[in-house]
Amino acid sequence: METAENPGTYVKDGQEFSRDMRYIPSRITKDGRDGYPVEAGRYRLVAARACPWANRAVIVRRLLGLEDAISLGLCGPTHDARSWTFDLDPGGVDPVLGIERIQDAYFARFPDYERGITVPVIVDVPTGQVVTNDFPTMTLDFSSEWTEHHRDGAPDLYPDAHKDELDEVMDLVFRDVNNGVYRCGFAGTQESYEKAYDRLFARLDWLSERLTNQRYLVGDTITEADVRLFTTLVRFDAVYHGHFKCNRNKLTEMPVLWAYTRDLFQTPGFGDTIDFDQIKDHYYIVHSEINPTQIVPKGPDLTNWLSAHNREHLGGRPFGDGTPPPPVRASEAVPALM
Amino acid sequence: METAENPGTYVKDGQEFSRDMRYIPSRITKDGRDGYPVEAGRYRLVAARACPWANRAVIVRRLLGLEDAISLGLCGPTHDARSWTFDLDPGGVDPVLGIERIQDAYFARFPDYERGITVPVIVDVPTGQVVTNDFPTMTLDFSSEWTEHHRDGAPDLYPDAHKDELDEVMDLVFRDVNNGVYRCGFAGTQESYEKAYDRLFARLDWLSERLTNQRYLVGDTITEADVRLFTTLVRFDAVYHGHFKCNRNKLTEMPVLWAYTRDLFQTPGFGDTIDFDQIKDHYYIVHSEINPTQIVPKGPDLTNWLSAHNREHLGGRPFGDGTPPPPVRASEAVPALM
Repeated sequence: METAENPGTYVKDGQEFSRDMRYIPSRITKDGRDGYPVEAGRYRLVAARACPWANRAVIVRRLLGLEDAISLGLCGPTHDARSWTFDLDPGGVDPVLGIERIQDAYFARFPDYERGITVPVIVDVPTGQVVTNDFPTMTLDFSSEWTEHHRDGAPDLYPDAHKDELDEVMDLVFRDVNNGVYRCGFAGTQESYEKAYDRLFARLDWLSERLTNQRYLVGDTITEADVRLFTTLVRFDAVYHGHFKCNRNKLTEMPVLWAYTRDLFQTPGFGDTIDFDQIKDHYYIVHSEINPTQIVPKGPDLTNWLSAHNREHLGGRPFGDGTPPPPVRASEAVPALM
Repeated sequence: METAENPGTYVKDGQEFSRDMRYIPSRITKDGRDGYPVEAGRYRLVAARACPWANRAVIVRRLLGLEDAISLGLCGPTHDARSWTFDLDPGGVDPVLGIERIQDAYFARFPDYERGITVPVIVDVPTGQVVTNDFPTMTLDFSSEWTEHHRDGAPDLYPDAHKDELDEVMDLVFRDVNNGVYRCGFAGTQESYEKAYDRLFARLDWLSERLTNQRYLVGDTITEADVRLFTTLVRFDAVYHGHFKCNRNKLTEMPVLWAYTRDLFQTPGFGDTIDFDQIKDHYYIVHSEINPTQIVPKGPDLTNWLSAHNREHLGGRPFGDGTPPPPVRASEAVPALM
């Protein structure tokens, strides 16, 4: 089955979960070589609070202060097999794009588009056409191509000095953690599930070790690697632990990673993008092939996300030579956690 | 759907889970008034390690030392819609009853038996006919009717002095906890699930409070009420937390109940009856209507069941004026936990 979230294969008996990584490769660049030059107000990022891949783009946009340069459209947490929809907007229509389903932007550019209708996606507002849904490149381009529109004090999320190490860590985290939880949840055999589970928890142990004495994943500041790890860890207990059977233990039972995730959660730009209700609704309602009742768990208890993490003593400079982003603007605020 | 484990209704859209409590009411008594007098060697208890209701009977039989008086047959963890089977035995046949499926004993007495084929069940060996599957009465009768065959030092699990309080506590625990977890897992609507969840955790909080300053549920010794609560709590993190969405928190996150359950687990007669592998296999494989992939989670980590519980300081006399049972006999031993 192909879903709207990920153009991948879900449960198929006897198979491993395999994510189709062929995304639309057009890039928005300073030089506009793909036909899409950087231009404030021209593009709209369409995301969903539920989706971890879209969450990355929402966080990076906010950390860099690109809110005025790139507007944000949000799809609701549930969708059918065809497309994410703008069911949260008045009349079910995105107020800028004027469409009900994000697939309309895909088809506007590629009438016969056959792969998954995914978020995050950037739409060229004047034409209503999708530009790209290539999420790994999208956030890096926010950092490198949109510099002219960054806020004062924007952090360097992909610093030259650490590029090799960042790429290496992000690759391991992608394979074993970001995508690893899906490989657990959508495994078609007991064997492929157990293989994914072992790799996931081995990597989480490795990350715990790495983060015991350093506050962030690479260097001493927040980077793209932290954003990418965060969006999976923040969903761990609410969804992956039960729904995807990633249940050796909860995040709250891994002290280093739990403190690390809380530290980021409490950092402006991270926790203020998280809507646990939408996250739970999405996974438990959309994945009826693994949760046929579509009943959404009431737990876990989330009152502990704002408890002290005590990681300041590890040093580090969260925003390097920059500053934290200002409070989230009212129009983009998520209902309070508690 | 009616299953072999419980003659109840599983998920039905728009309905609450409701357990059919009409069991075969024949009793084995000292006076034999139902045609089944107490008689050592005549009856066979058929259980399954996986099933919490059967687990009660296995524990009580062992605490009271009835192993020589009542033999034990064990069905495997998985079964089809018709019946639990003796698939763990050589040739798939119970060595005493000579049958492959426990339903054969039901049909031997009631050829048109229409309700669920459940364990625990007691079979009259000479006729091969089921006597009773009325699990709440079964264990109380082990205590009150089989006294002549109790071991020296057998505890009084249903003491006269506390009968009223025991009945009251066991009733609350049955409704909200023992059966409550099933009401969560097999709820047909979000509303009925949330109602069951709220009742379950309210009762667990009540139990935590009650057990904060007393070692056992009623009086100062182990009673039938502890046996009944134990068989649900011991399965909580392995099954109910994820599979049944009882996920406000894990048992390991409720310090009083976690220590209480570990205390019992480490008491002879309790932990030595527990087979976590069979428990997980049963729920995750049999309940394909809520776990269609039938993949069995690898977690949770179970290495902590033998850690110190520190509840001795609460006082209490586990076996009252009696003594702990001797080590489990080799023929009934469960593979070691670790």
